[in-house]
Amino acid sequence: MDYAEIYEKLVRPEGGKIIILVLDGVGGIPKSDDIGTELQVAHIPNLDKLAEESSCGLLEIVGPGITPGSGPGHLSLFGYNPLKYQIGRGVLSALGVEFDLEKGDVPARVNFATIDKEGKITDRRAGRIDDETNKRIVQKIKENVKLDYDVQYFFETVKEHRALFVLRGKDLSGDLADTDPQVVGESPLPAKALTKKAEHTAKIVQQFIDRAREVLTDEEKANMILLRGFDYYEPLPSLYERFKLRGVCIAEYPMYRGVSKLIGMDLLPQPSIIEDRFKALEDVYSDKYDFYFVHFKKTDSSGEDGNFSGKVKVIEEIDKQIPRLRKLNPEVLIITGDHSTPAVLKSHSWHPVPVLLHSPTAIRDDVDEFNELACSKGILGLRLGMHLMGLALAHSLRLNKFGA
Amino acid sequence: MDYAEIYEKLVRPEGGKIIILVLDGVGGIPKSDDIGTELQVAHIPNLDKLAEESSCGLLEIVGPGITPGSGPGHLSLFGYNPLKYQIGRGVLSALGVEFDLEKGDVPARVNFATIDKEGKITDRRAGRIDDETNKRIVQKIKENVKLDYDVQYFFETVKEHRALFVLRGKDLSGDLADTDPQVVGESPLPAKALTKKAEHTAKIVQQFIDRAREVLTDEEKANMILLRGFDYYEPLPSLYERFKLRGVCIAEYPMYRGVSKLIGMDLLPQPSIIEDRFKALEDVYSDKYDFYFVHFKKTDSSGEDGNFSGKVKVIEEIDKQIPRLRKLNPEVLIITGDHSTPAVLKSHSWHPVPVLLHSPTAIRDDVDEFNELACSKGILGLRLGMHLMGLALAHSLRLNKFGA
Repeated sequence: MDYAEIYEKLVRPEGGKIIILVLDGVGGIPKSDDIGTELQVAHIPNLDKLAEESSCGLLEIVGPGITPGSGPGHLSLFGYNPLKYQIGRGVLSALGVEFDLEKGDVPARVNFATIDKEGKITDRRAGRIDDETNKRIVQKIKENVKLDYDVQYFFETVKEHRALFVLRGKDLSGDLADTDPQVVGESPLPAKALTKKAEHTAKIVQQFIDRAREVLTDEEKANMILLRGFDYYEPLPSLYERFKLRGVCIAEYPMYRGVSKLIGMDLLPQPSIIEDRFKALEDVYSDKYDFYFVHFKKTDSSGEDGNFSGKVKVIEEIDKQIPRLRKLNPEVLIITGDHSTPAVLKSHSWHPVPVLLHSPTAIRDDVDEFNELACSKGILGLRLGMHLMGLALAHSLRLNKFGA
Repeated sequence: MDYAEIYEKLVRPEGGKIIILVLDGVGGIPKSDDIGTELQVAHIPNLDKLAEESSCGLLEIVGPGITPGSGPGHLSLFGYNPLKYQIGRGVLSALGVEFDLEKGDVPARVNFATIDKEGKITDRRAGRIDDETNKRIVQKIKENVKLDYDVQYFFETVKEHRALFVLRGKDLSGDLADTDPQVVGESPLPAKALTKKAEHTAKIVQQFIDRAREVLTDEEKANMILLRGFDYYEPLPSLYERFKLRGVCIAEYPMYRGVSKLIGMDLLPQPSIIEDRFKALEDVYSDKYDFYFVHFKKTDSSGEDGNFSGKVKVIEEIDKQIPRLRKLNPEVLIITGDHSTPAVLKSHSWHPVPVLLHSPTAIRDDVDEFNELACSKGILGLRLGMHLMGLALAHSLRLNKFGA
């Protein structure tokens, strides 16, 4: 049940401030039977103290057994039903390089590839060319490829063999099949429309590919491009439109900055170390914003690397900064994750994520530790991630009564 | 929310094995304030130990306060939304005698009845004739009743005064009213179409009833048939189609075998004693199957009989075999029920059912007993029964990530 549609109707613009700290992938599973999860092993006196003074629980971010990607994970925490608001791969790629998408844009992922004289693919990643080569080739294409159609194209470096293609113009469509056949020994597929209205777009894309190929003829490795994940950019309703929240994002990685921008949050300059995030939060904390999203990536990346002790260490570093948050004294302070990333699994997982909600109106439960097992006994129970926004709005006294 | 539609999109055919033990109606309520539930009273060291090493919780099989029938109870555990996939009474009856339904069949329940010379019903159950008489009369009808239509009919013994009628042919409909008026002193009702498209079927059914009545004229007690629960058989999508699971069913009772067959599981020969089920599981455990459903009926039937100590004893017998399961070492081992059947109530009930999920990727919680109260404190929380399949698929590493 998507209660956010009700929140939209009940919300008022006045109310307290909400800070949400997202420790990306913070949830884990025990390393072994006698060693606990990353959060259980970490020495986190400040988070434990905060849990003791908060309402605690577990969030099932997308649904039972479902492992969230980063996009759905964050949309859910922001009160956007991740089953309804799905971000495609092309749009995600554009977000990842902070490309300014406009409504109606058609973005796609690009791989540089190697083809032989017969045009068969011999390497789908062009020998993983380095970033410098990538930039040089991208520049070469931008300078030399002109299209006969009344459209604008963008071609941007990502890294290694990857780039971003965006088509901008009237009446475009993202209903195009990948040109990457996913195997070597075959020719790249033509740009194929999957619906009638995409036929025009397919012609433009094919011309772009043909001309890029001409320009790349003299390249040794990256002499072809493969496109996939075609998408159509339809802006999401903003956090302000939906919940009357003026939001600001404090995050380092483009992907999370991109999702925040997608829903109309302002972005602060990229903080590189953990302390900087808290400093940035303190500096921006004012009447200008109602909703402060602070993102920490390293919990997830150390989990993905299978680095259990590294993840523990990052959690402990974040813990040291928690007292600074307390001093800001927001009406609502939430600490949680967008999904679990157990170091044992080296990947995102479906396990529910601990959450604490600190507020003058939140009932303190018996939970006095911030971890999966302790929070499972909290008064917030086990909930859907997308319902967290309702609690945040309620505890910041931003929701009117439902019915008389 | 029916997440199973998401599971269908995320599922992959590779992954670990899943064993689910269904102790039919295992949940109970306390016999009195100082005596616990059947599970609390039972001495079940092996189940308790397993609970200690598992994630535990409670399943609300259909929904809050809803007492599940056996069909919805099992469909829910298999990940089929019981509100969407409803099995009609006619189809259930057919399953109960392991009748091989085909798409488009119209099954109905039959009661033999007694009518007087004026055709008024004097006994709706024909004095509960014995099984032998039933079989004789069924045979008599099959030999002597021919229909003028281009259809095939089946008429099968169930037991006592009950039988099964199935009509097979083109363009049939199950939209027919019962011919059983539910009271004595009245005449059986004519076969009445409830929709226009059922009119043809109503004529055929009426001819069958008329001719059966002629054939039964010389019977003392069972001289009439009453039909009810007309149904139309539309096959369900299989467990493989939905979740890429190759399933096998180890169950004694036709009803549970029937539901399993309905969703494409293979059936093993009927095991009569508890040990035989475990033996059958050990024998069939191989790369041929991914999903092993083992069913125990006696927990439910002793509950239905109000036999508290009998139910305790059955639970204890099952407990003794649990170590055999552990040796198979499946990636996911689930023990639960399809509903509660408290001996105190002598019937199915709505009380949530304890569940344990044992897996290398499952977080052990503090629960160290397998019963209603203990499991209510587990990390799985209180969940809808139909979401269990999502956890089973996730823990057997069969679900891809949702979104990027």
